[in-house]
Amino acid sequence: MCQLLGMNCNVPTDIVFSFTGFATRGGRTNHHADGWGIAFFEGAGVRHFVDYQAAVDSPVAELIKRYPIKSKNVIAHIRKATQGRIALENCHPFVRELWGRYWVFAHNGDLKDFAPVLDGAYHPVGTTDSERAFCYLLQELKRRFGDTPPPLPALSAALRALSTQIAAHGPFNLMLSDGSALFVHCSTNLHYIVRQYPFTQAKLSDDDVSVDFSEVTTPRDRVAIIVTEPLTNNETWTAFQSGEFKVFIEGAPTNA
Amino acid sequence: MCQLLGMNCNVPTDIVFSFTGFATRGGRTNHHADGWGIAFFEGAGVRHFVDYQAAVDSPVAELIKRYPIKSKNVIAHIRKATQGRIALENCHPFVRELWGRYWVFAHNGDLKDFAPVLDGAYHPVGTTDSERAFCYLLQELKRRFGDTPPPLPALSAALRALSTQIAAHGPFNLMLSDGSALFVHCSTNLHYIVRQYPFTQAKLSDDDVSVDFSEVTTPRDRVAIIVTEPLTNNETWTAFQSGEFKVFIEGAPTNA
Repeated sequence: MCQLLGMNCNVPTDIVFSFTGFATRGGRTNHHADGWGIAFFEGAGVRHFVDYQAAVDSPVAELIKRYPIKSKNVIAHIRKATQGRIALENCHPFVRELWGRYWVFAHNGDLKDFAPVLDGAYHPVGTTDSERAFCYLLQELKRRFGDTPPPLPALSAALRALSTQIAAHGPFNLMLSDGSALFVHCSTNLHYIVRQYPFTQAKLSDDDVSVDFSEVTTPRDRVAIIVTEPLTNNETWTAFQSGEFKVFIEGAPTNA
Repeated sequence: MCQLLGMNCNVPTDIVFSFTGFATRGGRTNHHADGWGIAFFEGAGVRHFVDYQAAVDSPVAELIKRYPIKSKNVIAHIRKATQGRIALENCHPFVRELWGRYWVFAHNGDLKDFAPVLDGAYHPVGTTDSERAFCYLLQELKRRFGDTPPPLPALSAALRALSTQIAAHGPFNLMLSDGSALFVHCSTNLHYIVRQYPFTQAKLSDDDVSVDFSEVTTPRDRVAIIVTEPLTNNETWTAFQSGEFKVFIEGAPTNA
């Protein structure tokens, strides 16, 4: 299966450190070599990078590792193809628009017999179960709430229910963001950490890289990192429970 | 106003040469320094790069100049803000999905009193007249043809009529692609060239760069380049007429 990385913060933060370790899993320390992608919100806009090369070989991944794009919400994915051939249109994350906001979606898992009726609001471009699930999610949000975005509690409740429903078809580890929050559903394997004052040093498990966050942060910064497998070996990560759904806002996990 | 660059080919071709000259206009040889963007179709997928920095200063533009992404349909834009602030969400090209295809749109012009009724199928994320026009175009295609894409002649006729209608509000130099064709409408300023066998040398107007296309092509290659102002000074470019609409397919202009 694939691997997921998400970041949610209270101030725009770069993801260079975490992405460096994560990208190493795309072909070097792990077998996820069937493409990768990353999307950064900046204000209402999104920078979206996808590639069907292994992340370790990709010039675009090299750019991301060197160019500190600052964002409050980031979703990244490295792919081990299960459904859908190796092609650009099958690389996560996927992006669509709903309610005048971009939505970014990535999935790790494998949905069986998942063929929801799509009413035409959103069509998959590629052939993955994942993009089908994304189209279904947005269609159902639009169907339930019409053309006006609901308050966060109602939105979260709907996403939680839809995630549970989709997860009946197989593992559905989900990251979804509209730029204001990061919605996460875990079926099988996700971990998170919240870094905040007092910041300490962190050391990547996958690469010989350390960073002292106290040198690059202010005392009010708060950064949540969510990932399939912990990225560092000297910090305490919290494992998601199977079936757990969390909403990360301003760098903190909530059950909103 | 902004500047546009499009490429349509019969074999996947890189745009490094043309983009190098074009990007120079984003802040060095011209005053278009309010952001830029480029989108490449690869199969059904799209690589989409946008930046609100001037193209001459952008590390992402530097990557594009060095990394030969091969594509049959490319649209690029450098921005001189007229409507909408300098922000990522206001950078062209814009991308949306219709009929399970991605559509890429860029516009040069300035639409006055353009406030079409948007029925909810597509909402602008940013605040430009351009993105509003894009949402309106796709909405009208969906309204006219439903959930099934029409044959190309019907699609072209619809786009031609919609372009004329929108251009009543001000300059509407348009580039639009669904990955199979490049649709172009000219209000004020666009030029094109078709490069095919026998290929010759071309020299950029904006930079001290030449390329001998005969060394990097095969005899059956055909590449159309469409741009606001001609990019080379030793080739013959054809100017669009005001109100002209053309469909570029497999590297050739048609009136389809």
